[in-house]
Amino acid sequence: MKDVAIGIDIGGTYSKVGIVDSFGNCLKESSISTKDHKEFDSFFESLTAEIEHLKKPLEDLIKITGIGIGAPNANHYTGTIEDAPNLNWKGSVRIVERFEKHYKLPVLLTNDANAAAIGEKIYGAAKDLNDFLVITLGTGLGSGFVANGKLVYGHQGFAGELGHIIIEKNGRMGTDGLRGSLEAYVSATGMKRTIFHLMADRLEESPLRDIPFTHMTSKKIYEAALKGDTLALEAFELTSKYLGEALAIAVAHTNPEAIFLFGGLAKAGDFILKPTKKHMEENLFYLYRGKVKLLPSGLEDTNAAVLGASALVWDAIGK
Amino acid sequence: MKDVAIGIDIGGTYSKVGIVDSFGNCLKESSISTKDHKEFDSFFESLTAEIEHLKKPLEDLIKITGIGIGAPNANHYTGTIEDAPNLNWKGSVRIVERFEKHYKLPVLLTNDANAAAIGEKIYGAAKDLNDFLVITLGTGLGSGFVANGKLVYGHQGFAGELGHIIIEKNGRMGTDGLRGSLEAYVSATGMKRTIFHLMADRLEESPLRDIPFTHMTSKKIYEAALKGDTLALEAFELTSKYLGEALAIAVAHTNPEAIFLFGGLAKAGDFILKPTKKHMEENLFYLYRGKVKLLPSGLEDTNAAVLGASALVWDAIGK
Repeated sequence: MKDVAIGIDIGGTYSKVGIVDSFGNCLKESSISTKDHKEFDSFFESLTAEIEHLKKPLEDLIKITGIGIGAPNANHYTGTIEDAPNLNWKGSVRIVERFEKHYKLPVLLTNDANAAAIGEKIYGAAKDLNDFLVITLGTGLGSGFVANGKLVYGHQGFAGELGHIIIEKNGRMGTDGLRGSLEAYVSATGMKRTIFHLMADRLEESPLRDIPFTHMTSKKIYEAALKGDTLALEAFELTSKYLGEALAIAVAHTNPEAIFLFGGLAKAGDFILKPTKKHMEENLFYLYRGKVKLLPSGLEDTNAAVLGASALVWDAIGK
Repeated sequence: MKDVAIGIDIGGTYSKVGIVDSFGNCLKESSISTKDHKEFDSFFESLTAEIEHLKKPLEDLIKITGIGIGAPNANHYTGTIEDAPNLNWKGSVRIVERFEKHYKLPVLLTNDANAAAIGEKIYGAAKDLNDFLVITLGTGLGSGFVANGKLVYGHQGFAGELGHIIIEKNGRMGTDGLRGSLEAYVSATGMKRTIFHLMADRLEESPLRDIPFTHMTSKKIYEAALKGDTLALEAFELTSKYLGEALAIAVAHTNPEAIFLFGGLAKAGDFILKPTKKHMEENLFYLYRGKVKLLPSGLEDTNAAVLGASALVWDAIGK
């Protein structure tokens, strides 16, 4: 019998679930719709049914040691999801209690970025690091801080919300209710807003001018940048500038050995890594200059969020 | 025999030394000049002579368990002071090694703000807190972060340098080499620069207009504010605005239960605490609003830095 953990990544649109061994091999993986479930109860039923389905063919081979859940606005201490703007279920959802009752197993909960940080430490490129941080670049921007070898949860359980610092005073309105928040600039949606700013302010031709706001994606901006589109390249430069400034701020807080970029935008490689590094260095206090590595995540991207969630189990109970 | 620790606070002008019991009672305290010693060797000789002098009358009553040192640009891991701009001794000073050789005792080193944070945890108002931060407001601005009950040192040992984040892009030049760094606005020297800006930009009468730059102090601005001086009050408001913005950023990093303000400026009480709290709240992500306490330090100010340094010993070896 092989010890495994169940990893669950709850996103606004889909939720992924996987069965993961202690080396980070995902034995089985699947997903269900999140947004089709107006109530948490029906979501929970679908998810547990899906887990049964995944377990079935492995029944005699595996022993499930625990369940790790990554979710937006997740509170590690209370085991609840608190009023997540991108989820249908309002108020405080006692998700850990539900899973514990059902499975009689240890259940760990945190937000997706914290889960990514633990995943990086357990399976990824941060195995030997005690001080690092992970930035997740998706629809929004999340972050997970590890200091003294432990994830920083903070007093309420909401540490590591770098997306919600104000990086541009009187800047654009963020979906987080903050004017000029980092997430409003550095995220898939942030890049989309930036390219529309550029199309308004500048005169260069660009095929991106044929795409309406609703259909614009960071992937399309990336593809244009690959072809040398001036505005797309400028959008990457601006996004990187804001990210570099924010990372310099983060470094002055916890002095990490490395910063890992994770998620969709991070795949843009040198369009984002190189200029972000440059801007970070320019904004760093001299003691830190040249000392902080900026790296792509060491987790496989296809199921990284599930891996991260499952890693919560190994981190809590040991491998 | 009473167990005691020696606390040493090395400042640019003076260095203080005290003998402190495990309850934070300072049994003996004294100081020597720092800046008169061009070489570290002569400083070390004066300091050890001073310690002998303090110990003498207590010789039969105390047992010294260790030595804690707070110093600018101090590196906890290497036991060195690294190129501190305000000290005469350039390069890397191996201060821990010198003290260990001389005293054959455990010697702990960190910067003054980290020492203040540990002092707050061991003797002060943070005894029961696992997640908090201390801001020291002096000539500069320092910070010490405690997360998961432990001081965050970071990879190089230089975590908690909130004074060196850029809070105003293209802002005033800081002595730290960064344009618009927090320390250039929120510190005794920062307030002095702010009042000169205000005197240049505005027309209100003020007795502060009779004081040249060289003689201006934050204490004089405070005294003017007490008498209702418009410009002085405005200087406190602006200083608090920058501090509030920075604290909101810090909260999004480590989600502390409380933030303690420590040092000269913190003594201005409601001139600084109230408006800083207001601006912090305005800039906070909604999950944090109303959840983070902003408090004056619980350490006695006259020898707080020495207390903080001595607390490093109890934190490392236990009381």
